[in-house]
Amino acid sequence: ARPKVGYYYSGKSLISIMGSFIKNINIMDVKSVPVVVSEDTTIYDAIVTMFLEDTGNIYVQSKGFLSGIISRKDFIKITLGNQDIKSMPVAMIMTRMPNIIYCEADESIYDAAVKIIEHQVDSLPIVEKTQDEKGMERLKILGKISKTTITSAMVNIGNE
Amino acid sequence: ARPKVGYYYSGKSLISIMGSFIKNINIMDVKSVPVVVSEDTTIYDAIVTMFLEDTGNIYVQSKGFLSGIISRKDFIKITLGNQDIKSMPVAMIMTRMPNIIYCEADESIYDAAVKIIEHQVDSLPIVEKTQDEKGMERLKILGKISKTTITSAMVNIGNE
Repeated sequence: ARPKVGYYYSGKSLISIMGSFIKNINIMDVKSVPVVVSEDTTIYDAIVTMFLEDTGNIYVQSKGFLSGIISRKDFIKITLGNQDIKSMPVAMIMTRMPNIIYCEADESIYDAAVKIIEHQVDSLPIVEKTQDEKGMERLKILGKISKTTITSAMVNIGNE
Repeated sequence: ARPKVGYYYSGKSLISIMGSFIKNINIMDVKSVPVVVSEDTTIYDAIVTMFLEDTGNIYVQSKGFLSGIISRKDFIKITLGNQDIKSMPVAMIMTRMPNIIYCEADESIYDAAVKIIEHQVDSLPIVEKTQDEKGMERLKILGKISKTTITSAMVNIGNE
């Protein structure tokens, strides 16, 4: 029998160790800072912001809470339509709750990757559930985790 | 002294094992199939293809070899410009060699992640260097690796 000494692993045990490892990387340790605009920002200005900040998704905030998300695909669709994007606000095209996929501060990079692949989105807002003054549930934006964040995390792991 | 027996690892050694692990995942084992169009495809048709296939980057091929890449950002820029995208070919806006960042079949998922982050691109064509009938170096497309592929790989590792 092979002695269980030192650093020898079969492929199978190694990959399951890897699996536990990434389930223990908390999203708050790898999160990035989202680009946030208000609901009355014009679509044109949001596109300019997207280019300046080189971001995939733009998050929309109203009264301090997350109210929507806009993707590059949303922007292509609306610009194709030849509409007046210099006067139209982002609130007209953004994805709203309950259709926003998000994660919370206690989730792992693995949990986030699963949601990104399953729901075919480019990023997830990291949110804290809270209530507004009327007692309605609202989401406070704590950060963002994206395919880019996950790719960067893989680079960082490899650099160790 | 701690005995070197069983599965105990300090955080530091574990992350360096993780690092070696991802450096040993070959891109050919995780690659996806790229969406490829010809140079005379109109920009409008390429955008429709992008939506139908739900892809980020579209690759352009000429005479069987990679000749260009188009991103969602390229599409937004050109549709904003109010140009006649129904008659304009993708060859007018695509990124060409030597500005295409690519990887070759012997590279790892770590190598690909490094290039994606360093060059701020969404995907890399996996290519084989070859020659055309005039002896010019050309790139044959073997596949694609993207932030999505890397995110999926992380899901697969976690599922083991």
